[in-house]
Amino acid sequence: MTDNARLIYLPLGGAGEIGMNAYVYGYGPEGKERYILVDIGVAFPDMDGQPGVDVIFADVTWLSERRDRLDGIFITHAHEDHVGALGHLWSKLGAPVYCRPFTAIHASRKLEEAGQDPTAIVRICDPWPATYDAGPFKVGFAPISHSIPEASGLVIDTPAGRVVHSGDFKIDHQPIVGEPFDDALWQSIGDAGVLAFICDSTNVFSGHPGRSESQLAEPIAALVASATGMMVATTFASNVARLKTLAEAGRANGRTIVLLGRAMKRMVSAAVESGVLTDFPPVVAPEEATEIPRENLMLLVTGSQGERRAASAALSRGSYLGHELKAGDTFLFSSKTIPGNEVGVARIQNALAEQGVEIVDADAGFYHVSGHANRPDLEKAHGLVRPRILVPNHGEYRHLQRHVRVGEAAGMIGVLAPNGTMVQLDGNAPGPVEHIEAGRIYLDGTAHVGAYDGVIRDRMKLALNGLVVVALVVDEDDAILEDSWVALRGLPEMTDDNADLAELIEDEIAELLPRLDNRTVEDDDKLAEAITRVARQVCQSEIGKRPEVTVMVSRLMA
Amino acid sequence: MTDNARLIYLPLGGAGEIGMNAYVYGYGPEGKERYILVDIGVAFPDMDGQPGVDVIFADVTWLSERRDRLDGIFITHAHEDHVGALGHLWSKLGAPVYCRPFTAIHASRKLEEAGQDPTAIVRICDPWPATYDAGPFKVGFAPISHSIPEASGLVIDTPAGRVVHSGDFKIDHQPIVGEPFDDALWQSIGDAGVLAFICDSTNVFSGHPGRSESQLAEPIAALVASATGMMVATTFASNVARLKTLAEAGRANGRTIVLLGRAMKRMVSAAVESGVLTDFPPVVAPEEATEIPRENLMLLVTGSQGERRAASAALSRGSYLGHELKAGDTFLFSSKTIPGNEVGVARIQNALAEQGVEIVDADAGFYHVSGHANRPDLEKAHGLVRPRILVPNHGEYRHLQRHVRVGEAAGMIGVLAPNGTMVQLDGNAPGPVEHIEAGRIYLDGTAHVGAYDGVIRDRMKLALNGLVVVALVVDEDDAILEDSWVALRGLPEMTDDNADLAELIEDEIAELLPRLDNRTVEDDDKLAEAITRVARQVCQSEIGKRPEVTVMVSRLMA
Repeated sequence: MTDNARLIYLPLGGAGEIGMNAYVYGYGPEGKERYILVDIGVAFPDMDGQPGVDVIFADVTWLSERRDRLDGIFITHAHEDHVGALGHLWSKLGAPVYCRPFTAIHASRKLEEAGQDPTAIVRICDPWPATYDAGPFKVGFAPISHSIPEASGLVIDTPAGRVVHSGDFKIDHQPIVGEPFDDALWQSIGDAGVLAFICDSTNVFSGHPGRSESQLAEPIAALVASATGMMVATTFASNVARLKTLAEAGRANGRTIVLLGRAMKRMVSAAVESGVLTDFPPVVAPEEATEIPRENLMLLVTGSQGERRAASAALSRGSYLGHELKAGDTFLFSSKTIPGNEVGVARIQNALAEQGVEIVDADAGFYHVSGHANRPDLEKAHGLVRPRILVPNHGEYRHLQRHVRVGEAAGMIGVLAPNGTMVQLDGNAPGPVEHIEAGRIYLDGTAHVGAYDGVIRDRMKLALNGLVVVALVVDEDDAILEDSWVALRGLPEMTDDNADLAELIEDEIAELLPRLDNRTVEDDDKLAEAITRVARQVCQSEIGKRPEVTVMVSRLMA
Repeated sequence: MTDNARLIYLPLGGAGEIGMNAYVYGYGPEGKERYILVDIGVAFPDMDGQPGVDVIFADVTWLSERRDRLDGIFITHAHEDHVGALGHLWSKLGAPVYCRPFTAIHASRKLEEAGQDPTAIVRICDPWPATYDAGPFKVGFAPISHSIPEASGLVIDTPAGRVVHSGDFKIDHQPIVGEPFDDALWQSIGDAGVLAFICDSTNVFSGHPGRSESQLAEPIAALVASATGMMVATTFASNVARLKTLAEAGRANGRTIVLLGRAMKRMVSAAVESGVLTDFPPVVAPEEATEIPRENLMLLVTGSQGERRAASAALSRGSYLGHELKAGDTFLFSSKTIPGNEVGVARIQNALAEQGVEIVDADAGFYHVSGHANRPDLEKAHGLVRPRILVPNHGEYRHLQRHVRVGEAAGMIGVLAPNGTMVQLDGNAPGPVEHIEAGRIYLDGTAHVGAYDGVIRDRMKLALNGLVVVALVVDEDDAILEDSWVALRGLPEMTDDNADLAELIEDEIAELLPRLDNRTVEDDDKLAEAITRVARQVCQSEIGKRPEVTVMVSRLMA
């Protein structure tokens, strides 16, 4: 072990939210540590907080400034919240990207789509106990069960001891597709002594043991058998095991399988290509399936979260690629609605109900199981890995906090480390040593916008308050010419008394202008301020709102 | 029975959503029916669909145009989604408003706050079998259990037969506050023969029998007994029974009760004033309670749905009226999170977790029961009322549809009647006879804005796309003067290449202007169109977004 070297852990994203995972490990003397990054994912915006934003990812500025000491990026699995930001951020980091073959297909595409060189990807074929060197770290990919093939925990051996990073996982001994959870494997990982376990927290509030993917086969098959019209099912495209279960239920009932939605086709072909998916029933292209009687069809479609542009939403609105739902058809939501998406999912379900479609959701528990470890499963994993320190990751603050308590109750040192908390893992008193400014970056079109830059806040103000635009012209002698002109955006044109709101504002500004002193007229800011005040007063009294105001002063030159 | 008279039912709101209940009944010859309105509630907007809107209510234009034939407005109970629009809409309807005393307190306040005359309220002291005449209708208030005192179903006797309107209800024989569900009463209402039952549908997807409010007393008392620091609990302020259960658990554990939040104080005082609430433990004002040791305090606070301005949110952000939470305090969410509010509630729970507060939610089922009838309870109610026709109301389309099926399975005629569906209830073939344009009105400040007026849609476009404002001046000879000036709202000032976006747009417009022909320059619309195109092109290539554009052309007069 190097003198004065330390082993640190620093979450830049994912420890304070569900999504945008990005975790730094460092080893070396303070200020000279070598780093690896585990995962580089996105979070999804909502109208409530980030209107118009495409995706959100962690601010990696801190790591980017130290990129000469970054020895590798390790991707645990191919979910968007773990790999989705790779294309957007790789150029700021520039290290080799290690992942297993199925994950590599997605990671390569992310780089290609962003115009980056996909040769940065290092395909890892051999799982732990094989390890790969990245600076002072030896990293192995230990297969773990989750809701996507080839999910892996990482075994990170360092001069200061072994760290285990669970990645997202559940304990599933019969996962249908991909490797089962292997108790003996995790026991043996723990046998060597584990300094710290960085562990998924998303389901810590669920008190019952999780259920296996394999438990769904029977109820889904029974449901498909009972369906009379067309059968449609939606789930996360990345849940390849679920797709297989659904497709097999279709095949067993003499139905032809059709994949609808780009992500659905992409995931199945990636899974077949990488060898993780075998024996998937033959599929027919949507356009070719239109002649097949509806009672012999089963559509697997994207959009389980109510996304407006996905196949589920398209079908709920009418015909999509030649397919249209009718009374007597059955639509299965083989999925959980993620908090925040309830309204969007209900919108689709109501539209389907209006078409007379029979809607089956997973509320009763028969048609969906979670991909994350519930509290009893977390406790089981802790018991196999047996770490000195438990550092909960991937969860909101309340999840991390609860998970810390679960660990402490079992005798581990629990460390609560939300984003930006640099934790020293080795030494006598492991715990937080420094706070890094960890932020969120919004991808807005092609621009990277900081969460606190005010750009998105300005947009929300426009949405909440509406906007008055006032244009006026000041001549060479600082005399205000002609009348001002007012345009409204997102405000009613007429007041409740049926007066023209823009004209009322123009009238009040016309009264104001002659009363302004020269110092106000000469100064754009002061002039704008005076006009803004009047425009707001008129709106407040006429429509009870105080809108945003933009004043455009054009000054004529001599 | 009058010749050619018919009995109709017309939902204007509440049959297609959860919220904004408003149901018309009419009796008489076609085109000459006399009407009553049952309930006049609001729905709540969200940023996703109605940014900046205050509340939403049904468009009552159809009824307003026939107000000379409106004989009364009947309010089933005091929840906002049943009475909240009374102040905003009463002047358009102008009929007497019948309600029971506790409800009357709230209804009067609604009228007063809107500057209307509260003497329009008729306080009904005697429940069914007492009835009140409103044109051809004899209406009685039949007490029914729900999550607010004095909830009532309506027994509406007409020359064509009896109609029963359930209002919101559950079957609770021990509701703590207010009247228990009285099987014999509802049996006797049904005994006379019921033509149609218009029945609450919100919980039709819940397959297990509902639970009584009284089942919460023991677990809540045990929780409060185990709390060591300050105890805080939030629930709907209108759930007076819950407030009593919570307060009694506090008193039993030697805690002083403090009500935080305007609605909380208002509801308790209305309940005491109207006599429905007795033996409520004494409360101390927040300001006076600051000296009481925290382990002897129990705060009952508003904001169970994550509302940003309510007491829960204020406490999660820091000190509120002299009270501040600390590690070791306990915060109980004695409530269900309404779909769409999950993110707001999680925000508060995470903020509380950061303060080290122990959060207890109702997920495990110990600390909250629903106020609505689940499917088995609906079936029980159907069996007591025994109608010929079942018309489900208060629910999204999928709820109404499912409820129709439940009724049909039990041998009733089920009628699916979403908002705007006029249903003839009498005659040989009861069912829809006409479709009325039923809309939603947004209260935006003080303005009433139609959902399809485009105003709110424009605001959402601003929020999604941002805005470029371009000002330019055209002189007396149709020559464009000087440079244009560009202002940005909700867009990044700098491009990713660190160029000034507004300047780039100005430059491109400067290149465009000399190339425009006279017909374009002379025409404001054509000029704006040409400039908009250029502004969007620049933004598309520089930041990957196509913003909204407002062009302000000032024309100098000769």
